[in-house]
Amino acid sequence: MSETDRNPTHPTHPTDVSVLGLGAMGSALASALLDAGRSVTVWNRTPGRATDLVGRGADAAHSAQEAVLASPVIIACLLKRSSVEETLDPVAGELRGRTLVNVTTTTPNESRELAAWAAEHGIDYLDGAIMAVPSMIGSRSGQIFYSGSRAAYEALLPMLEVWATSEFHGEDAGRASLVDLAMLSGMYQMFTGFFHGAAMVAAMGMSASEFATRQAPFLAAMTEELGSYAKVIDGGDYTVASQQSLDFSDLTHIVRASEEEGVDPAPIAGVQALISGQIAAGHGAEGFARLYESLANR
Amino acid sequence: MSETDRNPTHPTHPTDVSVLGLGAMGSALASALLDAGRSVTVWNRTPGRATDLVGRGADAAHSAQEAVLASPVIIACLLKRSSVEETLDPVAGELRGRTLVNVTTTTPNESRELAAWAAEHGIDYLDGAIMAVPSMIGSRSGQIFYSGSRAAYEALLPMLEVWATSEFHGEDAGRASLVDLAMLSGMYQMFTGFFHGAAMVAAMGMSASEFATRQAPFLAAMTEELGSYAKVIDGGDYTVASQQSLDFSDLTHIVRASEEEGVDPAPIAGVQALISGQIAAGHGAEGFARLYESLANR
Repeated sequence: MSETDRNPTHPTHPTDVSVLGLGAMGSALASALLDAGRSVTVWNRTPGRATDLVGRGADAAHSAQEAVLASPVIIACLLKRSSVEETLDPVAGELRGRTLVNVTTTTPNESRELAAWAAEHGIDYLDGAIMAVPSMIGSRSGQIFYSGSRAAYEALLPMLEVWATSEFHGEDAGRASLVDLAMLSGMYQMFTGFFHGAAMVAAMGMSASEFATRQAPFLAAMTEELGSYAKVIDGGDYTVASQQSLDFSDLTHIVRASEEEGVDPAPIAGVQALISGQIAAGHGAEGFARLYESLANR
Repeated sequence: MSETDRNPTHPTHPTDVSVLGLGAMGSALASALLDAGRSVTVWNRTPGRATDLVGRGADAAHSAQEAVLASPVIIACLLKRSSVEETLDPVAGELRGRTLVNVTTTTPNESRELAAWAAEHGIDYLDGAIMAVPSMIGSRSGQIFYSGSRAAYEALLPMLEVWATSEFHGEDAGRASLVDLAMLSGMYQMFTGFFHGAAMVAAMGMSASEFATRQAPFLAAMTEELGSYAKVIDGGDYTVASQQSLDFSDLTHIVRASEEEGVDPAPIAGVQALISGQIAAGHGAEGFARLYESLANR
């Protein structure tokens, strides 16, 4: 098949897009692109991961260099920031003039460093942060946040929307990652809270599954409180009558109950430590949202 | 009005039920009983809290003793376990033969101690744990868990259902409180996670309210994962392929991002400490639900 047949809009490139990294997420991204009728080159450091995708029409590159040269748009979905550096630094010259969409999990500062590195090498850089598990890619039930090159985001949007709902957060390349990690922080703390509660009720013989049938709808309902807390935080006045006071929210009884049942109280003791700190600082009569001030950069 | 007119079913008692403690929650409980047509005696240690309720038909008692003598069913909604003791110990003799429903927040062991004290004094004891804010009382959108005297629960159910959806958790008086505190532990950790995430995105100028519009639906959707985690915990095999491994869930990048933005990483660092502990113990390839084992009483 000639290049022209395969890719009429980019006659100088064999494929539309190359995906570097075929872990569960990279494979899902490549697969969704194939489903959407895109021509795709794939590459993985350890070979053998491309078989299924090749069977469905993808080209397998033998090196990162070959993969980069195959397409005008390069997706990097690697293990971590250092993998991005190891993979892309040797092919910086080949990346010049192309668009790099890096969806590898990085901190905001790491994304900013990669954006600066890309700018030095004449690479159009878009950073992506994926709020989805691989099975959600292509269903639009997930979300992907982007930041960095607005031009790249706008040009690629039809392709990006194949994967998930897309949202652009600004030209500071670190912003997508910052929102992503902030969202995930809440999720992991919620999961840990569930494990802690499940460990507590296990002491009375309740299974984790039975606890989940109560805890899941309760927590889902309680997410409706976040907007009220947010208003108090944004207003900066924590002496709001409608909010339960810190004196009343004191959780030493939960810490004690956890200890009495032989369950490590660490997760809830951490919350109580923040409450105690605010009470000690004289804010006991203020609302629970005051805990925000224990954490924020002021 | 004669006693017989007011309370035809209990001719020896002026009212159906007495509520001790008129904080926000005690007042809401008394108010819902009045709305449901019950005759109610109310009492509060500090006077002046009963005015509205008296205006709506409640009797105000001048002492806890007077309140206890007024009704066959006594609701205690006091500040904490020691308040229950201080209030009820002097009137233990008057409580004999009556039913005490204690909805004061206590640990499971404190509830068990109060049940033992009640048994000694010939008092029928029902412990209640309220999963609702005062404004939810009477709307049935809240839940109240009960444990202790099954006979008292069954006899009082029509009255209890006036307040909220009721659930009986067994004759061990500590069980209602244990389920309650386990549920609340998850909730407070979720709220703290939200404050932490909001503090992170504040560094890029996103308001807490804007963050809440993203975080609330995301966390609500993620509660659907709790059932899957629970199945893994109940099965006891954490090497489940469908679960993201601990090695992959390593959150040091969230801790680092939090530090880089000047935000106290303590809440998420606590989760990471549990992950690191399990990885160090050789469980890095197992699923995220493995964190349960860091907390549980085994």
